[in-house]
Amino acid sequence: MIEDREPIRVALLGCGTVGTEVLRLLQGRPEEFAARTGAPVQVTGVAVRRPHKHPNVPEHLLTTDAAALVDGDVDVVVELIGGIEPARSLLLRALRGGKSVVTGNKALLAEHGSELYSAADEAGVDIYFEAAVAGAIPLLRPLRESLAGDRINRVMGIVNGTTNYILSAMDSTGAGYSETLDEAGRLGYAEADPTADVDGFDAAAKATILAALAFHTRVAATDVYREGISAVRPGDIAAAKSLDRTVKLLAICERVVAEDGTESVSARVHPAMIPRDHPLASVGGAFNAVFVEAEAAGSLMFYGQGAGGAPSASAVLGDLVAVARNLVVAGKGPRESAHAKLPVQPMGATPTRYHISLDVDDKPGVLSQVAATFNDNDVSISVVRQAGRGEEASLVVVTHTATDAALKSTVDKIAQLASVREVVSVMRVEGESS
Amino acid sequence: MIEDREPIRVALLGCGTVGTEVLRLLQGRPEEFAARTGAPVQVTGVAVRRPHKHPNVPEHLLTTDAAALVDGDVDVVVELIGGIEPARSLLLRALRGGKSVVTGNKALLAEHGSELYSAADEAGVDIYFEAAVAGAIPLLRPLRESLAGDRINRVMGIVNGTTNYILSAMDSTGAGYSETLDEAGRLGYAEADPTADVDGFDAAAKATILAALAFHTRVAATDVYREGISAVRPGDIAAAKSLDRTVKLLAICERVVAEDGTESVSARVHPAMIPRDHPLASVGGAFNAVFVEAEAAGSLMFYGQGAGGAPSASAVLGDLVAVARNLVVAGKGPRESAHAKLPVQPMGATPTRYHISLDVDDKPGVLSQVAATFNDNDVSISVVRQAGRGEEASLVVVTHTATDAALKSTVDKIAQLASVREVVSVMRVEGESS
Repeated sequence: MIEDREPIRVALLGCGTVGTEVLRLLQGRPEEFAARTGAPVQVTGVAVRRPHKHPNVPEHLLTTDAAALVDGDVDVVVELIGGIEPARSLLLRALRGGKSVVTGNKALLAEHGSELYSAADEAGVDIYFEAAVAGAIPLLRPLRESLAGDRINRVMGIVNGTTNYILSAMDSTGAGYSETLDEAGRLGYAEADPTADVDGFDAAAKATILAALAFHTRVAATDVYREGISAVRPGDIAAAKSLDRTVKLLAICERVVAEDGTESVSARVHPAMIPRDHPLASVGGAFNAVFVEAEAAGSLMFYGQGAGGAPSASAVLGDLVAVARNLVVAGKGPRESAHAKLPVQPMGATPTRYHISLDVDDKPGVLSQVAATFNDNDVSISVVRQAGRGEEASLVVVTHTATDAALKSTVDKIAQLASVREVVSVMRVEGESS
Repeated sequence: MIEDREPIRVALLGCGTVGTEVLRLLQGRPEEFAARTGAPVQVTGVAVRRPHKHPNVPEHLLTTDAAALVDGDVDVVVELIGGIEPARSLLLRALRGGKSVVTGNKALLAEHGSELYSAADEAGVDIYFEAAVAGAIPLLRPLRESLAGDRINRVMGIVNGTTNYILSAMDSTGAGYSETLDEAGRLGYAEADPTADVDGFDAAAKATILAALAFHTRVAATDVYREGISAVRPGDIAAAKSLDRTVKLLAICERVVAEDGTESVSARVHPAMIPRDHPLASVGGAFNAVFVEAEAAGSLMFYGQGAGGAPSASAVLGDLVAVARNLVVAGKGPRESAHAKLPVQPMGATPTRYHISLDVDDKPGVLSQVAATFNDNDVSISVVRQAGRGEEASLVVVTHTATDAALKSTVDKIAQLASVREVVSVMRVEGESS
């Protein structure tokens, strides 16, 4: 009988929105968890900073001494504190003490993933972290396991709900960034301090994790180019609309193959225009979606809720069942896979495409001047649209692929042309063939 | 060094489109497979019926004696023969001989899944079968593992590319079923004998597998209600269009909760109208997509290529890496999970909604007669549309949810009403709240 087995003892570190759901679901259906793991799953302690703030947690489980809880008689440590410290020290302590770990801490994994992997490996225990990227969407397990026999070439997705909510709202209302951010805050879609979301830190941590898994390569958080959405203007959104595109904050991890066959990895987060008929374009509000392109599998898409207590708890509990089952059958989850050791490209060397919208003098020769500047910088033009309106004219250029550095420097030079009155919008273009 | 490890020896049974790709990918990147599994992966034999038909397979690997290959010195048997026999006997032989199994054989799993699971369990070896449902899309692993801590309420998807191609084409051209099937055959989207696809056998086998995994319950192939697409008429497609819906062949696995709280499972395959703005509506051509609704995770969608040599090979190789890694670290894949033992509902008891389109006499009292028939059968009406055209009128009714049996018998009675000239279209409605 399963019920006669020694229970799997779980320590919970942190009990916010996600932790509360984890506890509720675990305690609500003990038989199901026992049946699925092969042994009862028992929470033996919940470490929090202020116990009186957790009236719903049975009092005998609560403790403020997380280290003692980790050192105690537990098999698995579930970390939902977030941030670097004390989470890092507590997890290293757990792993070195022979305890398996489940965490949803993307910042910690992006900064110290390899250190945690090594500690797990040395102790022969598991570390799982599905909840760290795209909440409830089963994404990391497919990347690490289902596609382990394939060769991933690209992972591109919407992995931050707050910025997606803001950009979706700007797209439908035409309102400005600050105004929309305020509204998102009032509706609970943005935190009081929205920096981690709107400046792209959250998405960049996720890109770090995704790039490492997809390309079997260690990627440092500092390797990931990061540009948030605070500079996105209504003019950018309008320009995108006029070209039947929409603006999304994308996390993009690519295998870049040079002409001589040398491979490298590009990992970046920035706003980009994508075609309105691209599957990511219709991902609205706080939803997440990730496109994966693999050599044999072709294009895959994963879609679902990227955040929130219950969705994240679903991911944490899936991991917990896996760890518990491994403990019961003496199995072992996947280890760090970094054998490919590909170099990570700086943003300047990454091939991208730009959309550029300019206000220019409406007189002959302006277009040829602008076109010559592109040509001088070896940037080839894909589309030009010109429209006059009195003394001024607007000029919209979409380029072919070039290095990001070449595109940036071209834009700088164009901005200095006497006939260019204003650079209205500059944005990268993704999701279509060049 | 990984290269110094004993290799994982793999026997390949069958070498058609998928097998050829599996072999090509495995032999093309031996270092990657070694790095990902922890040991070299080596194909030691390929069993085929006619060796001379496989000039690309190294001659020393080819054999016609599949049983001897299975009995020989191999660790993993990859079965890509398809069909029940000899696949079933060979896999039981492999499992009982202590060899792990990777298969993409949906018919075999639907008919004899439990027998295979038991044999694997008794021998302490693995059985993986990601390629059996939705080709390259990582779907079974997420259901079995990522969502193992959640409670799945519904799985609904397009899991057969041939029928989706035909229905998509009928929707865009307005052409009839036979004509479109012929065209699909010419273009390579339908097999010479299309029965397994168009009559829903293929989708029903997949629904059997999905229902078992989603609800931790043994489901027999005969438990799954099956209705193909051969009876779908241009009139059905036109009726769907006029209501801003489209027709798809859906595999639906649901947890049905009765008023007294008793739970059961409904598993079925049939054409259904879904709203044009439903995410499954835009899945065109030979693509597959599956929606999963879980208690904590909410709605998830998985999208990608459902068939084809390379996509299916991606799924097979992901499984092969998992099995090989388990062999290296003495791990163990998931076992059959059938602890919930929910009863499977007959189709008649399953709650569904109907769309019914009728040609009726254009005279007073017809609508009230029709409405009374619904009322007599306890079926409540959601939408009625009536339009006159000379002596005849058309009447379109969309019902609220009722049992499928009640809906069917209501339609039978309506067909017998004197004022009803013809029942133009009857189709179930899915993907919207009732």
